[in-house]
Amino acid sequence: MVPVEPHAVVLEDHAVAVKAGVIVDILPIADARARYAAAETVSRPESALIPGLVNAHTHNPMTLLRGIADDLPLMEWLQGHIWPVEAAVIGPQFVEDGITLAIAEMLRGGTTCANENYFFPDVQAAVYKRHGFRARVGLPVIDFPTAWAKTSDEYFDRAGEVHDLWRDDALVATAFAPHAPYTVSDANFERVRMLADQLDLPVHLHTHETAQEIADSIKQHGQRPLARLDRLGLVTDRLIAVHMTQLTDAEIALCAERGVSVVHCPESNLKLASGFCPACKLHHAGVNLAIGTDGCASNNDLDMFGETRTAAILAKAVADDASALDAFTSLRAATLGGAKALGFDAKVGSIEIGKQADLVCVDLGQIETQPVHHVVSQLIYATGRHQVGDVWIAGRAKLRERRLVDMDTAALIANARQWRERIAAIKR
Amino acid sequence: MVPVEPHAVVLEDHAVAVKAGVIVDILPIADARARYAAAETVSRPESALIPGLVNAHTHNPMTLLRGIADDLPLMEWLQGHIWPVEAAVIGPQFVEDGITLAIAEMLRGGTTCANENYFFPDVQAAVYKRHGFRARVGLPVIDFPTAWAKTSDEYFDRAGEVHDLWRDDALVATAFAPHAPYTVSDANFERVRMLADQLDLPVHLHTHETAQEIADSIKQHGQRPLARLDRLGLVTDRLIAVHMTQLTDAEIALCAERGVSVVHCPESNLKLASGFCPACKLHHAGVNLAIGTDGCASNNDLDMFGETRTAAILAKAVADDASALDAFTSLRAATLGGAKALGFDAKVGSIEIGKQADLVCVDLGQIETQPVHHVVSQLIYATGRHQVGDVWIAGRAKLRERRLVDMDTAALIANARQWRERIAAIKR
Repeated sequence: MVPVEPHAVVLEDHAVAVKAGVIVDILPIADARARYAAAETVSRPESALIPGLVNAHTHNPMTLLRGIADDLPLMEWLQGHIWPVEAAVIGPQFVEDGITLAIAEMLRGGTTCANENYFFPDVQAAVYKRHGFRARVGLPVIDFPTAWAKTSDEYFDRAGEVHDLWRDDALVATAFAPHAPYTVSDANFERVRMLADQLDLPVHLHTHETAQEIADSIKQHGQRPLARLDRLGLVTDRLIAVHMTQLTDAEIALCAERGVSVVHCPESNLKLASGFCPACKLHHAGVNLAIGTDGCASNNDLDMFGETRTAAILAKAVADDASALDAFTSLRAATLGGAKALGFDAKVGSIEIGKQADLVCVDLGQIETQPVHHVVSQLIYATGRHQVGDVWIAGRAKLRERRLVDMDTAALIANARQWRERIAAIKR
Repeated sequence: MVPVEPHAVVLEDHAVAVKAGVIVDILPIADARARYAAAETVSRPESALIPGLVNAHTHNPMTLLRGIADDLPLMEWLQGHIWPVEAAVIGPQFVEDGITLAIAEMLRGGTTCANENYFFPDVQAAVYKRHGFRARVGLPVIDFPTAWAKTSDEYFDRAGEVHDLWRDDALVATAFAPHAPYTVSDANFERVRMLADQLDLPVHLHTHETAQEIADSIKQHGQRPLARLDRLGLVTDRLIAVHMTQLTDAEIALCAERGVSVVHCPESNLKLASGFCPACKLHHAGVNLAIGTDGCASNNDLDMFGETRTAAILAKAVADDASALDAFTSLRAATLGGAKALGFDAKVGSIEIGKQADLVCVDLGQIETQPVHHVVSQLIYATGRHQVGDVWIAGRAKLRERRLVDMDTAALIANARQWRERIAAIKR
């Protein structure tokens, strides 16, 4: 068992006792057998038990767009492919079907919590809830009309409605999700700040993603995006800053001082040639680091094992230091770091007494992770997501020995095929 | 089916006809049914058929050292961990058991051919042959005594003996493997050149791996390694140059002009903080590009799907161009590019009539690769190696629906456990 907190600890031959979805004890297996008469006992002698992975930035409806276009310059990709297709398909059904497929993929890969960023957060929240999946759904704010809302007032009105519906839910919560500094005005950012403070919500924002974004901001606002956000009062511990490939040392220090969480999406940054996030510098400065896959249209998967591994190895080359972002620190970013970014760290992110039982069993007894010299090295540097055997969210089994407990895989694939036909027919 | 040659082609509903290990026809399934009365027909309607992946640089005995030490500066890693452990374990049994475990892992991940680089090539060759796995085994040359040979003369004598034994084998061949420019003298490089020409063998060499290597070479020899190798007559189409993270434009042009093959090991380069290979520049210059995992002590796996994906996305960020090293080009590097580097491209690396049937079926009908908008995008950007269903080498089934045909998985794992215990007991 790798509880993540305390840090850098591996407990051998340990058990977790769970009652009503909550971790009530962590103790040697022999003691657990003596102390508890469990209604159910799951024994996995070849497995590592870890906290559920937290995907701290994703656009899960876009799972249906996995691989519709790759290997293109950003604007050609967006204007020639993503936007025309989205214009034709976007709506509640697309969001529902995409997130449902994504939940199946996430569960099969050991992810138990997502920070969702797309349109129709009302539909998103309902789908996550129906499947017992933990999520924050973003309340979108963007300066132009979309299928979700036409005016700024409508974005904020609908945001308030969705928030009201989910404010007390145990699994699903909301966050403000202003799209990016280049698509949101000062006035709308100020409304976001005011409402986020009032409703006690995080602010989930793409920023400092590309050098172009920085140059455009300086041209338009006379400031780099982070300075502008600071002027607008948004650089606080509510901020979930996604991508952050372009950072000065002073900006890193500011993020640390203010308690900003940074979501590192290394594979998206590489694939879109956005740049290199200074993950090791951020970590050393004391910035809370989380990991996100980004959406399947750009990445092209929701594989948090793969993403964390890429984060761990890329950080070393970027820092020119083979000891940067070690395996324990990387696992922490993928679990507790994500939970903290989302404001869920009191509930999940580590295996601790009193926390929700969001747990993942990883089978290390396969050829690909033999011999097991170090459990956490195997988890970060060698494990494939197909080695995830069992997943629980709030104590409820969602995956058992590789089988989805309450989802129909054949129906999901049949549905994905229908979307493939429908998307193939869109003119672009 | 993605034949790789011709380039950028996907054939739907096609079959391959194989006779005596050789591809004798490629045709629509309906035509194949009409034309051939096959002794065996394997039907995989949800799968992509691709050429077997070629791992163009690996140290497979080190699979037994997977994860013994990570996250350390290079010299601490080598001197404090790898070398003391190797000193205690190296020998024929370690080589045999490590390669056997590696073959199982490679087959389960769609790799059918390896460019091996370690000691005891006699044992290596015998193990690959016994398991029907295609390989070039490196004939080591290094300026200091090892368990394999004590003097330069002994290295060359033993190299000649191993080469003689395997010179006419259909599956296993040899290459010279001088370790690196900083461990091989001018005199020994000259002997390698002479013998490689005489015996018509490739020269498999780590070079331009780190900035330190370049600086040291300038200090010691007054030349960068490639210039020194050129002075010694080694920069030719025999050269398999591994790593190559430090390259000037003139060096790239020289490699292209001379027909050097470059083996890109992106995950090793990242994890050891070696630097960034300019894969896109090399490709555009016309250099033959291959992909290698490097050994499991540094990488920590033999996952050619993961490695190729990393190569594809990293190239974009390094080139600052999201269209760099597209999916078809990346798949080509992992198959035909590797085969060409090894001098095996007349026999394998693509699905072409007359070539050996080294074939891999990848199940795209799983959640993780749905919907299938583009087959090759899925293969490079979304497929996990666990989706490899079937593997054939020279027409012989090695993996059938995820099961190793002629290897005992339980025995392999039991053996890996014994090595874990033995290695854990080594003082370091």
